Parts: sequence; C-alpha cells; structure tokens
Amino acid sequence: MTYTNPARALQRMLIRVEYDGTGLVGWQRQDNGPSVQAILEQAAEKLTTQPTPVQGSGRTDAGVHATGQAAHLDVPTQLTATDVMRGLNALLETHQVSVVSAQPVAAAFNARFDAVQRSYLYRILTRPAPSALRRNAVWHHRAKLDATAMHEAAQTLIGRFDFSSFRAAGCQADSPIRTMDYLSVLQADDEIHITARARSFLYHQIRNITGSLVQVGIGKWDVSAFTRVRDAKDRAEAGPTAPPQGLYLTHIDYELD
Amino acid sequence: MTYTNPARALQRMLIRVEYDGTGLVGWQRQDNGPSVQAILEQAAEKLTTQPTPVQGSGRTDAGVHATGQAAHLDVPTQLTATDVMRGLNALLETHQVSVVSAQPVAAAFNARFDAVQRSYLYRILTRPAPSALRRNAVWHHRAKLDATAMHEAAQTLIGRFDFSSFRAAGCQADSPIRTMDYLSVLQADDEIHITARARSFLYHQIRNITGSLVQVGIGKWDVSAFTRVRDAKDRAEAGPTAPPQGLYLTHIDYELD
Repeated sequence: MTYTNPARALQRMLIRVEYDGTGLVGWQRQDNGPSVQAILEQAAEKLTTQPTPVQGSGRTDAGVHATGQAAHLDVPTQLTATDVMRGLNALLETHQVSVVSAQPVAAAFNARFDAVQRSYLYRILTRPAPSALRRNAVWHHRAKLDATAMHEAAQTLIGRFDFSSFRAAGCQADSPIRTMDYLSVLQADDEIHITARARSFLYHQIRNITGSLVQVGIGKWDVSAFTRVRDAKDRAEAGPTAPPQGLYLTHIDYELD
Repeated sequence: MTYTNPARALQRMLIRVEYDGTGLVGWQRQDNGPSVQAILEQAAEKLTTQPTPVQGSGRTDAGVHATGQAAHLDVPTQLTATDVMRGLNALLETHQVSVVSAQPVAAAFNARFDAVQRSYLYRILTRPAPSALRRNAVWHHRAKLDATAMHEAAQTLIGRFDFSSFRAAGCQADSPIRTMDYLSVLQADDEIHITARARSFLYHQIRNITGSLVQVGIGKWDVSAFTRVRDAKDRAEAGPTAPPQGLYLTHIDYELD
C-alpha cells in the first residue's frame, strides 16, 4: 500500500513558450550563458518550491526565436493552468521569455516524443536599408528575391528525402531521411516568409534550405539546379547556412484528447 | 565676388530614419544618454569629415520608436542619395538606428518647419500573456478591449479642438489648439492599433489620448463621457498617459517638388 501526500500530488502541464533568442545560448541548459530552459526551470522551482525539470519539444540554437515552443513540467495539483501561466511569467528573471499558455496533460505526456509536427518560420528582409526595429528579427538581404521561383524550388523538397545536402556536420540524428510535410515561400510586404512543417528536422535543416533557396531567389540556380543539389546528398553542394536570427519555432502539434 | 570651393559645395538631404527607442533618451541630443540625433550626427561627421547637424521633424520621447522619422542634413555634393543612405548605415555606432532612405532637397528645406503632416501608430497587445518578442514594442493589456467603441470615441477628436485634456504639463506649445486630421482604432490580430495624423501634436498628446481611449475600451467610459473629458480642457479629467514603448512615429509628409 502506498501513501500519497496530497500536498505533493503532481499534475503535468504543457506550456507554450515565446522567446527572443537574442543573446541567449538557445533552448538547452548550457554552462556558457543563459538558456531558455534554465530560465524557465528557475521560475518553475520558485513556483513549485522544488526542483522542476522543464522538458522542451526540442532544442533551438543561439539567436533563434520562438512564438510557440512547447514544453512540459510537473506542478502541484493545487495550481491551475492559469496559475502556472501567470505564476511563471511573474517569476521569470527576464521578459525575454514568456509563457503564452498552459494546459493540463496526462502524466505520461512528453513534449519531445509526443510531438507529431513541428512548424517553423524563416523571415528575410529584402530592402536596401537595414531595419533598426527588426535588426535581431530577420536576415537582411539588400536586393529583392524572386519569391515565386523560391516557392517552386521549395516544392521539390516536399515528401520523403535524404536531406544530407541540408544537414549540418554536428547533426546527431541516426538517419538523414526526413519527410517534409509543407514548405512555402511567400512575399509579405518587404519580407520573404519561408514556412516549414515536418514531424522532425535535421540539425540546421531549415537554415540550410533557406540559404539554398536564396540562391534560387537571386537567380543563381533554377529549379533543376536546386533539385540536383538535393539529390547530391552532399552538404558542400548546397548554399550557405542562413543566420539564426531569422528563424522562429512557431508551433508544435500534439494529438491531445 | 565670392569664391566657392567646389569640394565644399553642399547638398541638403532629407533622410527617413527608423529606430528602436529602447534604452535611448529619445530623438534629441541630451547629456544623460544616447539620443538618435547624436548617433546620427556622429555618423554624419564621419561621412562628411566635418561637423554636420542633423535636424529632425520633431522630438520623440525616451522609449518611443520610429519607422519614418524625417530629418535633414547637408553633405558634400559628391555624395549621392544612395551614398548617404549606405554611408550613414555603415558608420552608425549602433544598429538600433537605421537610415531607410535619402533624397536631395532644396537648400532652404527644413524637416521641422516644412512638415505638413505627422503620422503615428500606437500598438496595444491584448492577450493574457505578455509577449517576449514584443516586450519593448507594445503596451501590454491583459484583457480584450472594445476596438469598435474606442474607434467611435476617437471620431469625436477629429477636427479643430482645444486638446488641453490630453496635453502634458511640460508642453511648450503656445496654444493647446490642434487639428486632428485622422484618428482610427483597429483590431489587428492580438493587437489594437491606434493611428493618428495631424500637422502637429501637443506634448504626450497621442499617449494621453490612448490612455483615455483605453478607458472606453474597458467599458468605463461611453462616447459621451469621452466627449465630456475632451470638453473639460483639464488634464486631470482624462485617462493615464500610455507608456512610450507602444508609440511609433511612422511618417512625415512634405510638399516636395
């Protein structure tokens, strides 16, 4: 027979997290600077008065932003979802991270392993002058880009492929095979928006695809040249890695009851 | 007979300036911190190799942003408008300020006195959670606001009025009479956008109007109560001053040839 201290009964919560990645070392706790995970865990420990791991859906790199990162943590059952959202926001040591929402989930829920789709946005500013207000929010490209050609090239990446050409050297995934569910390129005022959705991505996959799509956007590659890059399965054949500050993790989908 | 050194012949340029007002003391040069004007003048002196005053269309307060502040400066005639835009951007000591465009204007042009209309945007974020990415870009209001009622109240300010109820104590204008050309309140996703246009504004006029419109948006005042506030010509009757970080100077109109 087990005795459960009601004061210690825990409820797992799924939180949706927004952050400005500027100056942070990324999602994951590291020794060399402030991480989103450490900032959230510090607030969570204050809220729950006990060490409280916060497990994200996955890592994001230094400088990368999120409007909809997802994570789970366990909190005393006395705390409602609204309490968790408000409490964490009140206790966060920096307003560079915010908790957009919280919702109760089953005790077995796992923010990383239960994710069925990950959505990202990459923003490229295309105008002669840099933008003061968006200096850490976009990749600045001085000339216009051909969004229509970029979109056409992007469609050749939809489906199941060996993405070795767009995989960073440090990638720890077992396989370079991934299935891209959605990839679009749209002109939005003075920005190009690249939207990507897949169950999972390789390390730097979206930033490497973006760097290669820009080669199409400037007219250096046509769609068949882009397809040859994809089929080369060789990182050296593809374009440069786009910088982190244009990338946003926008949403994680789960199959919740 | 006067001798003009051709190397010293000057061309007046109108520049459009964007800035993130966070941490700056405002437009105007001051002793207590970095100003947009001082940052631009430092870059302009490097570009022209001589002291170069930069005269803005008007001041903005600490923390207030701009996407379209206007200013004029005199540069050697060898420099094209594109040279000025690129040169200043390359020489600016901070990417918190950027020069969006430059164009040659007559030697008698004055960015302040020739302005025929000034346009501002005020952004209010209305959602329960604060926004990490927009923390210095909006005024955060946790509850929804009634944009329709706010817009209806705003229409009662269009035209020529004594705006004493919305005038800050430190205002140095000779008269509290101003003509509001345009004032609208719109819901834009999770933000309320207040757009205001007039030849000139009183000190804190838009932030004070915004604070009062929020009283309408939360249902505390109806349109007739708002009109009574306007007609009281008494700052004490109006709402609080909205914070600076939601305000953007978006455009200055000139009658250029």
